[in-house]
Amino acid sequence: MEAAAERGLDYHFVVQKQHMQDFIVKCAEKVGCNDSNQAKSIARMLIYADERGHFSHGINRLHIYLRDLQTKTCKSNGCPKILKQKGATALIDGDNALGSVVGEYCMNLACKIANENGIGWISVNNSNHFGAAGRYGHIAADKGLIGFAFTNTSPTTFPTRSAQKALGTNPISIVAPAEGGDKFALDMATSTVAFGKVEIAERKGKEFVPSGWGANEKGVEEVNPKIILQRGGLLPLGGNEESGGYKGTGLCQMVEILCGIMAGGAFGKNVREWMGTAQKADLGQCYIAVDPECFADGFSNRLQQFLDETRNLESIDSSLPVRCAGDFSKSHMILTEKVGGLVYHKSQIEYLQNISKEHEIPFFEVTNFKAPKFE
Amino acid sequence: MEAAAERGLDYHFVVQKQHMQDFIVKCAEKVGCNDSNQAKSIARMLIYADERGHFSHGINRLHIYLRDLQTKTCKSNGCPKILKQKGATALIDGDNALGSVVGEYCMNLACKIANENGIGWISVNNSNHFGAAGRYGHIAADKGLIGFAFTNTSPTTFPTRSAQKALGTNPISIVAPAEGGDKFALDMATSTVAFGKVEIAERKGKEFVPSGWGANEKGVEEVNPKIILQRGGLLPLGGNEESGGYKGTGLCQMVEILCGIMAGGAFGKNVREWMGTAQKADLGQCYIAVDPECFADGFSNRLQQFLDETRNLESIDSSLPVRCAGDFSKSHMILTEKVGGLVYHKSQIEYLQNISKEHEIPFFEVTNFKAPKFE
Repeated sequence: MEAAAERGLDYHFVVQKQHMQDFIVKCAEKVGCNDSNQAKSIARMLIYADERGHFSHGINRLHIYLRDLQTKTCKSNGCPKILKQKGATALIDGDNALGSVVGEYCMNLACKIANENGIGWISVNNSNHFGAAGRYGHIAADKGLIGFAFTNTSPTTFPTRSAQKALGTNPISIVAPAEGGDKFALDMATSTVAFGKVEIAERKGKEFVPSGWGANEKGVEEVNPKIILQRGGLLPLGGNEESGGYKGTGLCQMVEILCGIMAGGAFGKNVREWMGTAQKADLGQCYIAVDPECFADGFSNRLQQFLDETRNLESIDSSLPVRCAGDFSKSHMILTEKVGGLVYHKSQIEYLQNISKEHEIPFFEVTNFKAPKFE
Repeated sequence: MEAAAERGLDYHFVVQKQHMQDFIVKCAEKVGCNDSNQAKSIARMLIYADERGHFSHGINRLHIYLRDLQTKTCKSNGCPKILKQKGATALIDGDNALGSVVGEYCMNLACKIANENGIGWISVNNSNHFGAAGRYGHIAADKGLIGFAFTNTSPTTFPTRSAQKALGTNPISIVAPAEGGDKFALDMATSTVAFGKVEIAERKGKEFVPSGWGANEKGVEEVNPKIILQRGGLLPLGGNEESGGYKGTGLCQMVEILCGIMAGGAFGKNVREWMGTAQKADLGQCYIAVDPECFADGFSNRLQQFLDETRNLESIDSSLPVRCAGDFSKSHMILTEKVGGLVYHKSQIEYLQNISKEHEIPFFEVTNFKAPKFE
């Protein structure tokens, strides 16, 4: 329960993964996605996030992907193809396919190239939102490789000093395999927080969020979550200039260069607005696979030592142990295993019931959540 | 003067670059570095930083490199060599050479491999402090490639929640070529600030630094610069956990994985203490060159558009324009060109005079700084 407790979440219901997958596939078919592998790809993407407690990137977003298919803003049978290939690199046309389809294709290709060349570096244009960036690194890590994934996103963030939102929350993700399935798994927006965190604070009736999270409509720091959500935007990691926001801005711009600019997709302030359907997204993305065997022997062993040493560091507060990137997700996955399925707050189940009604898809069985005992 | 004004610096003297180079080379020779290319490499490294106004990484550090040579903690004639090579990758033994020698060797090799394979990814162990990380990316960018450099460093930073310093200020750097010599040049520690910034605040008699910069000896946030410097340490980018410090921690750990862990050098809390001479540094570093020609045509053109759009964003405060990573350095370089040499505060000249006396090297001519007129 550590993950839930640390995140302040309450769970009311449990859903079996198979039931959730079937529901998502049926919804996708209803809006015109007849390729069962593409429909299943959406399910893999959303279940990946919910399994790890990243609800902001899970089934909460199902309606967005369904609408993209329904309005044909993105193709339901898109087929990414290689435009250029040389050595360790490839440039891909995402064919405006579902983001998850593009992501799986590109990371698998990156791994194949890495097995031959040590590195596989893929740049793709004409792509779509691909869910949690960290998911694609796991595809590489499960093959013993280190995986990176980056994407640009719609402009929601104020660069340092700017009065205009001109950057997305452009995530950086890396997953590296240690021993026995343990991993270092970093997946972070380059803004201080995602919008979801501000929304949760507002829904809980909080009057203030911590400084550095968001800004008002002029780009000036703001702590009232209502103002941030209604007419403001996010601040880059580090918050204001004096507390290091220019570094978060730089990282966010670095991701933009690796994605839209290198791939020849939309970039910067010209990326379409979030959830827009008037035009295709044309996102740029970057996927990198690295074979650690090409470098010093014993990589996974050293990484394991580093993870263990980190977790064993003396903590400021003994109730809050030092964690490695990915440890929250891991403890949430243990919880879902213990209770035999994905866990949700009642509001999420109501959300799914509405989708079930709207698309006339039979709803699935849910059971009551009962907190398991941990030994 | 924008760079100087924004950084609150005063200049008193101007030194011709050639004079500074000759002085550094003579100092290096005096402490046993008889390979003139290695001695010049130290000069290139330190002048690079001072030319850009990054004084914390310039001649201010000359004594550290001289002492490393004098105590033979690092070799004065080290010769990096290839241990493994496959496709786009190479593993290098840095041979405990001067960090700058290792860096120049590795980035040049990365560029050579990138010209053949699209990517050149070099991992090196047995290296030393290499000055400003951004310098190596410029070697790639001057050849039309995108260059990244990363290094691990001595533990000075508290990971989120930790009461022990277990990470360095592990920098991330990327330099990408736009048009007509313009570049995106990000070079940032993954701690909120470098120690140098805390030292400057303390020297100016400030009682407080902004929140998120540093911590006391227990890892708890502290704003008194004296306490941070005497017995505390730095906080990762983002500061405390609630303001995103766990992301800075994750980035810092990512750099550790790319450097010490991948290269098989020292890593994490086991890296020797800062400025220690009891053992060799055995730093791990990572150098990556990427050929943008392997991806969508017109990279430098799109990057230029992005840089221009960013600089033209409406600003919160019209006296503080929106900047791209590297713009501060650029304006400082324009200043040094205008006045015909490197510019220094009088305390820096005194520091060099002391080195001149200690090593019995004749001092060079300095002229008085006079602020140039900008049209």
